[in-house]
Amino acid sequence: MDFSLTPEQQALRDSAATLARREFAGRAFARDGFAWDSLKTLADHGFTGLTIAEADGGQGASLLEAVLVMQAVTKVCPHSGDAVQASNFGAIRQIANFGTPRVKQEVLARLLRGEGLVSAGMSEPEAGSALTDLRTTARYDGDSVVLNGQKCWNSHGPEITHSVVWCRFGPKTRDIGAVVVPVDAPGFSRGRAERYMSGEQHCTLNFDECRVPRDYVLADSGAVKKMLSIFGVERLGNASRALALAETAFERAVEHVKQRKQFGRPLMEFQGLQWKFADMRIKLDSAKMLIHRAVANADGETPDPVEAAIAKAHTNEVAFAVANDALQAFGAAGYSTDLPMEYFVRRIRGWMIAGGSVEILRNTIAKDIFGERFSQRRPVTEVR
Amino acid sequence: MDFSLTPEQQALRDSAATLARREFAGRAFARDGFAWDSLKTLADHGFTGLTIAEADGGQGASLLEAVLVMQAVTKVCPHSGDAVQASNFGAIRQIANFGTPRVKQEVLARLLRGEGLVSAGMSEPEAGSALTDLRTTARYDGDSVVLNGQKCWNSHGPEITHSVVWCRFGPKTRDIGAVVVPVDAPGFSRGRAERYMSGEQHCTLNFDECRVPRDYVLADSGAVKKMLSIFGVERLGNASRALALAETAFERAVEHVKQRKQFGRPLMEFQGLQWKFADMRIKLDSAKMLIHRAVANADGETPDPVEAAIAKAHTNEVAFAVANDALQAFGAAGYSTDLPMEYFVRRIRGWMIAGGSVEILRNTIAKDIFGERFSQRRPVTEVR
Amino acid sequence: MDFSLTPEQQALRDSAATLARREFAGRAFARDGFAWDSLKTLADHGFTGLTIAEADGGQGASLLEAVLVMQAVTKVCPHSGDAVQASNFGAIRQIANFGTPRVKQEVLARLLRGEGLVSAGMSEPEAGSALTDLRTTARYDGDSVVLNGQKCWNSHGPEITHSVVWCRFGPKTRDIGAVVVPVDAPGFSRGRAERYMSGEQHCTLNFDECRVPRDYVLADSGAVKKMLSIFGVERLGNASRALALAETAFERAVEHVKQRKQFGRPLMEFQGLQWKFADMRIKLDSAKMLIHRAVANADGETPDPVEAAIAKAHTNEVAFAVANDALQAFGAAGYSTDLPMEYFVRRIRGWMIAGGSVEILRNTIAKDIFGERFSQRRPVTEVR
Amino acid sequence: MDFSLTPEQQALRDSAATLARREFAGRAFARDGFAWDSLKTLADHGFTGLTIAEADGGQGASLLEAVLVMQAVTKVCPHSGDAVQASNFGAIRQIANFGTPRVKQEVLARLLRGEGLVSAGMSEPEAGSALTDLRTTARYDGDSVVLNGQKCWNSHGPEITHSVVWCRFGPKTRDIGAVVVPVDAPGFSRGRAERYMSGEQHCTLNFDECRVPRDYVLADSGAVKKMLSIFGVERLGNASRALALAETAFERAVEHVKQRKQFGRPLMEFQGLQWKFADMRIKLDSAKMLIHRAVANADGETPDPVEAAIAKAHTNEVAFAVANDALQAFGAAGYSTDLPMEYFVRRIRGWMIAGGSVEILRNTIAKDIFGERFSQRRPVTEVR
Repeated sequence: MDFSLTPEQQALRDSAATLARREFAGRAFARDGFAWDSLKTLADHGFTGLTIAEADGGQGASLLEAVLVMQAVTKVCPHSGDAVQASNFGAIRQIANFGTPRVKQEVLARLLRGEGLVSAGMSEPEAGSALTDLRTTARYDGDSVVLNGQKCWNSHGPEITHSVVWCRFGPKTRDIGAVVVPVDAPGFSRGRAERYMSGEQHCTLNFDECRVPRDYVLADSGAVKKMLSIFGVERLGNASRALALAETAFERAVEHVKQRKQFGRPLMEFQGLQWKFADMRIKLDSAKMLIHRAVANADGETPDPVEAAIAKAHTNEVAFAVANDALQAFGAAGYSTDLPMEYFVRRIRGWMIAGGSVEILRNTIAKDIFGERFSQRRPVTEVR
Repeated sequence: MDFSLTPEQQALRDSAATLARREFAGRAFARDGFAWDSLKTLADHGFTGLTIAEADGGQGASLLEAVLVMQAVTKVCPHSGDAVQASNFGAIRQIANFGTPRVKQEVLARLLRGEGLVSAGMSEPEAGSALTDLRTTARYDGDSVVLNGQKCWNSHGPEITHSVVWCRFGPKTRDIGAVVVPVDAPGFSRGRAERYMSGEQHCTLNFDECRVPRDYVLADSGAVKKMLSIFGVERLGNASRALALAETAFERAVEHVKQRKQFGRPLMEFQGLQWKFADMRIKLDSAKMLIHRAVANADGETPDPVEAAIAKAHTNEVAFAVANDALQAFGAAGYSTDLPMEYFVRRIRGWMIAGGSVEILRNTIAKDIFGERFSQRRPVTEVR
Repeated sequence: MDFSLTPEQQALRDSAATLARREFAGRAFARDGFAWDSLKTLADHGFTGLTIAEADGGQGASLLEAVLVMQAVTKVCPHSGDAVQASNFGAIRQIANFGTPRVKQEVLARLLRGEGLVSAGMSEPEAGSALTDLRTTARYDGDSVVLNGQKCWNSHGPEITHSVVWCRFGPKTRDIGAVVVPVDAPGFSRGRAERYMSGEQHCTLNFDECRVPRDYVLADSGAVKKMLSIFGVERLGNASRALALAETAFERAVEHVKQRKQFGRPLMEFQGLQWKFADMRIKLDSAKMLIHRAVANADGETPDPVEAAIAKAHTNEVAFAVANDALQAFGAAGYSTDLPMEYFVRRIRGWMIAGGSVEILRNTIAKDIFGERFSQRRPVTEVR
Repeated sequence: MDFSLTPEQQALRDSAATLARREFAGRAFARDGFAWDSLKTLADHGFTGLTIAEADGGQGASLLEAVLVMQAVTKVCPHSGDAVQASNFGAIRQIANFGTPRVKQEVLARLLRGEGLVSAGMSEPEAGSALTDLRTTARYDGDSVVLNGQKCWNSHGPEITHSVVWCRFGPKTRDIGAVVVPVDAPGFSRGRAERYMSGEQHCTLNFDECRVPRDYVLADSGAVKKMLSIFGVERLGNASRALALAETAFERAVEHVKQRKQFGRPLMEFQGLQWKFADMRIKLDSAKMLIHRAVANADGETPDPVEAAIAKAHTNEVAFAVANDALQAFGAAGYSTDLPMEYFVRRIRGWMIAGGSVEILRNTIAKDIFGERFSQRRPVTEVR
């Protein structure tokens, strides 16, 4: 058992941190919208596609290394962390694993160069956590595939260049597939830009006889089974970002209570606060260890789905709690938008919902505990 | 023991609710800045100065009645709830209790007409919870009193017409007093407007040889002892607002999970959510009862400071937790700014800090439990 | 709204407290088994059957008064509190409300004299929370009724004189009834005495062609509907006892940390502990208010089932938490059986299970929130 | 980073588990008193002194290996786990690290053969967490050392053969030392045997001109500094046992809810319970990872004190919570002493106090966070 990083891993983490401080720190917390410039910089320094095979233009690194980069960048600039997520952990992995040569050439390469942004289009107005209820359809038409439907809650939707659209090629669960859709495809349109609590934009994506090349199909059946296996990667990216922001919030709060005096002495001398900070530290460390376990145990690229679910559920919740306590330690200053403390809370909040809500993850964990899959469908009421 | 409202109290609450739905609902959640129009409407309908003596232009009602109005209005429109708070629970009560006839005529009357807005100026850059460390000075100069110093974290600061400025007339704790300062007083200026997490504005107030009539002094000694006794009123107003918003968030979440289907059935059928909602209900009811106790037991206008501290600390925390769970029940929609769910969380968050942080309140409660006052000053380290 | 006790209520509470200190304090914590002597003393002083009609030999007092007596006695001697519960809040109320004149004369009168002990026989090996699954049968046979079946988890089972046995007169839910069974009835036997974590004894009750007079039937149909309505009374008795023990634990812990020195000063001076004690106080007060609400709002004798459920669920949980924290404040001494601190924890623990587990109560609360009854039966799994 | 066990470590764990099932399972939960027979069996199979150097008669294994054995044995039989603790993790390590050759020959060898039982005598009536306040004295007298004082809270006190007595050779903190005292030393006596909530015995140890050979001194100065460094080992043993019992409680509860039916279906199908079990799993895994981190990072034998403190504080609390929830899943059966569920709760409870209370550990963690040592001594109250 070994909980330490190799010198190479430390060097990677440090070089990402150095880059972030030099290039991203200046505009941290000052952005409105996706960090395109950071994405380009990351690409130029080899920090995109870290876990993607070298043959596909990636770096062939391990999931742990990708997590280290994510943490290092996010702690300096959360928006640049989004760029790490998008170019390493999310839908890009679905493209890298299941894309045709043409998709790899036309889409993946662009994403890896930092010139494109892809997100997964899964949620629909009538199908959130119940992916199998999705209604967006796909049908083949010669060399094309034609999509109809609507996707909602697309983060950075107004700025994406591609969406991996989950859709059904037929009526059954096994007919669910996924198609890469460029935003300039005929029949594609976006709804009005809305904002999340964090300030990030999202919008609906509409597919009205939307036509893309047949080669852009990632899967026309069995997608739920095939592709869900790599959701754990996205979940660990999500958890890593939540942890990085909470650690940053904690570190800032520590510095504050060391400096800030009340009643003639530094806040850190008050035992009530000391114990609260001890609790925060325990929480952060426990989340870190659960993330590390899932990452270190990942067989090749794919983490164990239960370890990933445990890591994400726990981290989402403790990161929010810690950021919230860190805000409190600043008093009114923490509640003011002058400091990023309240932004940490708003930002971290979303990850309890995105990428597998903490409730859905508990279903996953329970299924593993009891060795059974439980139907979420309605019970039939017996009458006596 | 009687936990019910009299028919008159119910009628008052209902008339406030009716007014709020008719006059305030339309602009609820759509404002940026203080709800001046609501304040005027409240004044026109006799909902300002509810607990202020009729001789002073108030309604001579009980604290319970003021709380009922607060709750009814806040549940419909939080910003209008701010107007209820400002005209009934906050610094206005300091003016009503300690103001000279001239202050009552020139300031209080205007506030009661809904044409002025006063807040308490207490916090300073170097004195937050430790009120006794404040540095703003006051000195008499003929018929005037002259102030120097700075106050921060003044909510609605850019829009106030008056501030009750806590300041010291001498070096000792007993020399602390309070002066009403109109914003057109010579030597008064405001800092740049900033925003809180909730979107509310605040700013610093600067006093540079700021001169106001001697009659505007509320107290030139013993203010901490004299005036702190009515802080309980503000705290219960604060708690009542937090509870009202949390109840609204809860009610909206209940409606949502009754309607929203996942896996083919309403969310309310999932026992995991049912138990969460049961917890939310337990929390809300417990907070309500603690507020009601403090209000019902208030001797005349002044609640027991420990009962008020217990009510505020508990309500602040459970209201935040409930609003946060209510957001979660909506999933991504709850995290989007289209709905007010995330606003409830942001707004309620501030009341854990304002008007006596939950930490300071725990000091108050502990003091009561142990029958002693504990020094917050630094220990002398023994060396052996 | 009035949260205070009348002078008469205060006098009643004080006289119960005085009696308890004089008669019960000496043997508090030193008993093994039911406090028969306390029961007799309570009866002699008019503290049995407080809420039972005077016509039936009771005191005709209010539920609030019964709760006050319960609290006063339990705080001095928990085992004597069991005697208050048994003679006021539990199955005795089912007998008083639904008993025939013969049962009132032969059974109720004896219970009220402090010479009998009755408990409700509900749980069965295969029917715990699902009362409607019970299998114990009853059939009429001339002037008798004949029972067959088994009841488990009968607290004080080895010492009871009667059991109110829930049983079915037919196959449907509406055929469930209840019969009073004296322990000397032919065909009645008890299983081996076992102990709970608290040290209390329990045993199974076996009914093998057990025959009792037809007049001993409390209900031969509709019992679930009719008699469940008075379960709220038992639940509030349960919650009141839990609160009383937790308050006692808290008070002892307060005294300890005022006296006990570490690092040269009383433990109460440590802010970490102060905040913990403030939390304990908040919890106790919130539970007390929820109990008081349910009691004060009880229409005649029957509390609102949802208010009772909220009061019991919250009190059970906070009482356990507070007693556990109180133990902790004593360190190793709290963990040792020399002091009753660890007994408080063990005793309170059971009330999260007995009389409606906190899980079942959450089902009750959720049903009220959503205005629907949810089937607990198995869902039919859809296959696509 | 590698979270897996080597084949050798797995084999060691499995052989300990096999031994425990074969030799200890039969009397698990049936003992009253220290498991002398288990200790002997452990010694015969090389499971004593695992981390002690081979030169001193130990096994020269790693801390991780000792933890694996602890977990494997404790999960089968908690009392045999006590024997693992006593012969590997506790005061025995102080003897192995600081004992003279004579002590190693006369005492350590006997302990390793499973024929002796040593515990650390630290707490005194007036010095609990504040070790530096201890009053037991030691003075040299020729070839002897003479002790006077009293130690309390000595677990298994009535059965120990030796105590490592912490005492002061002079007035200053640096004069604190430790002496091995055999129970047959002149001037040694024990107080009356008392019991903890768990049923374990403890007693006071009295030293009245108690005389032992000078060679039995482990340290006559600087003990706090020198020997506290190995407290982390005991803390990780403590945490490992708490986790093992909580895991056992969890596994039993999982089996129960898979079998037990209510409302016609297994309890595991109720989502409310599923989510609770998911929470339990998250807690257990997080504790395990924090223990593993501290163990894996231990430099040689000594874990980082902060990592050990974090692991112990978190594990103590989550283990208690999980065992308590596991009891609840059994309902009344869990509360009855027929099953060991309630024993798990009682036993785990003690570890929040023993070996560094969770409060003292938070002080340790806070000290590390802020890089400062905070005086626990009384503040001087300023008067203005």
